[in-house]
Amino acid sequence: VRILDRQQIVELSDFSKMAEAVERSYVSVSNGAATIPPVGYLPLSEHNGDCHIKFGHLLDDPVFVVKIATGFYDNPKLGLPTSNGIMIALSATTGEVVAILQDEGYLTDLRTAIGSAIATKALAKKDATRILVVGAGIQAKQQIHAHNKLLTDRALAFEVWARDLEKLKRFVQDLESEGCVVNACEDIETGCDAAEIILTTTPSRTPVIQNEWIKDGTHITASGADAPGKCELDEKLVKRADLRVADKIEQCLDHGEFARAFATQLIDQSQCVELGNVLANAALGRKTNQQITIADLTGLASQDIAAARTVLEAAGVI
Amino acid sequence: VRILDRQQIVELSDFSKMAEAVERSYVSVSNGAATIPPVGYLPLSEHNGDCHIKFGHLLDDPVFVVKIATGFYDNPKLGLPTSNGIMIALSATTGEVVAILQDEGYLTDLRTAIGSAIATKALAKKDATRILVVGAGIQAKQQIHAHNKLLTDRALAFEVWARDLEKLKRFVQDLESEGCVVNACEDIETGCDAAEIILTTTPSRTPVIQNEWIKDGTHITASGADAPGKCELDEKLVKRADLRVADKIEQCLDHGEFARAFATQLIDQSQCVELGNVLANAALGRKTNQQITIADLTGLASQDIAAARTVLEAAGVI
Repeated sequence: VRILDRQQIVELSDFSKMAEAVERSYVSVSNGAATIPPVGYLPLSEHNGDCHIKFGHLLDDPVFVVKIATGFYDNPKLGLPTSNGIMIALSATTGEVVAILQDEGYLTDLRTAIGSAIATKALAKKDATRILVVGAGIQAKQQIHAHNKLLTDRALAFEVWARDLEKLKRFVQDLESEGCVVNACEDIETGCDAAEIILTTTPSRTPVIQNEWIKDGTHITASGADAPGKCELDEKLVKRADLRVADKIEQCLDHGEFARAFATQLIDQSQCVELGNVLANAALGRKTNQQITIADLTGLASQDIAAARTVLEAAGVI
Repeated sequence: VRILDRQQIVELSDFSKMAEAVERSYVSVSNGAATIPPVGYLPLSEHNGDCHIKFGHLLDDPVFVVKIATGFYDNPKLGLPTSNGIMIALSATTGEVVAILQDEGYLTDLRTAIGSAIATKALAKKDATRILVVGAGIQAKQQIHAHNKLLTDRALAFEVWARDLEKLKRFVQDLESEGCVVNACEDIETGCDAAEIILTTTPSRTPVIQNEWIKDGTHITASGADAPGKCELDEKLVKRADLRVADKIEQCLDHGEFARAFATQLIDQSQCVELGNVLANAALGRKTNQQITIADLTGLASQDIAAARTVLEAAGVI
């Protein structure tokens, strides 16, 4: 059993290779070349935490992967990161444990950000550059980096909004210290109006983005809703959108951003399309610059498998 | 992160402490003091394998546990054990990984056998000694040992039946070499007739035990059906039983031994009782020596948590 720690995983992670692998994995999920069972969910509400278990197998892969990811939202008060986790790679031939990736959530953060950038690239207007990021946590930061690395055909301009102004200030300084200029947005409504792309990255349980604030042509990549009860977007906005793209329709209608609109019958399953299908066939994507598009990313085991595979290949394990 | 390998885990495992912890965990599950989400299941049918992910949290425990267990039924042809696995213990306060138990399925095998012996002890006639074991794999062996260790108030006599006569012969010799005398049973029908207790331990997908073979007063602990499609008992026998005890009713009706009888409406949910409730209140158990009782054990994350906790406490990790 090969055991890799976070530092080794960081060094073995190649953004471009991982982005390619994650993109291919979305296609696999949507064309049936992947077995991705429902996500396991364990609430640990005593300590404002939860645990997701994502697992699956891409056909013909030598390994399958189980990812355990935790989110403990009071951790920052203790000086600890919110997210944490570990991935286990097992032989698809014998069931033996092949490798343990003690990534402490690094790969989850990275593949989530990569997924967001892939969705944005596929669905936003081709000339869209003004991005509003909602949230000032690790995902906000990673998604800014991932969009900069993946949407290389244009110069992106980021505004960041967060409920906690002090946190927002530190976030902007933090990114600046990394040589990445972003602007603090003081009013989310104005921010939405100015944005061509909106990235939501919060663990909110009430809508953060209201329907009236969104103008035609906007693309939204929503990646915060990964469990029952979480939501970031006004359900009227979900209904109004011209194109609803789910990373996996079943997950999104169950506990993603589309779940509330589906539960209240504002939308039905036929009004959603899967990201893997859009990536395989651009004709299923945005049709005009006036359309509102929403990508609902609940997170897929296939992203984890793709990320883990990239690392395991670089490490010479598989 | 503390990493324990199989050998260390074997040395740290104390049967009596683990049996006490597993028994308490059944009670916790049935009285609501445990969060045990549905089991994750990944079929890997290309190689005749499957993977179960069991996870949960017992209230007030400092850790929660995720157990990954694989069964690859062609492994013996490769000289490898069928079952394999790993457990991860994470902090219930911060979500950080606390320990990795590379038990390779050892704890699963042990806690499954312990669960079987607990169920038999609770449900069989108090003077029952003649046990028929169906199957000649690792569970058959472990369950014989566990019953000998737990039912210490009587001298047990084991007959073992298996489809594969060569395997059965080796099994009997293997146990004999460990100083444990068991008899090979050549005819399962005769074996059932002679038995007071039957333990089924196979991954069968068709009933191995027919209704007509079972006489009044028999207790059956069925632990083979842990996934959709598996079954060892004739559904007419499940209907005929005077007492149906589930480790978890929800799991047993979904994919345990009781699932087929439930799906065909031979039984309903109200005709099953949970093992934890029987353990907490013996009045819910066997009422007469003429009753047929069946324990359907699909395996619970709480057993894994109990087993892992025992080891982690012995290792000084928690």
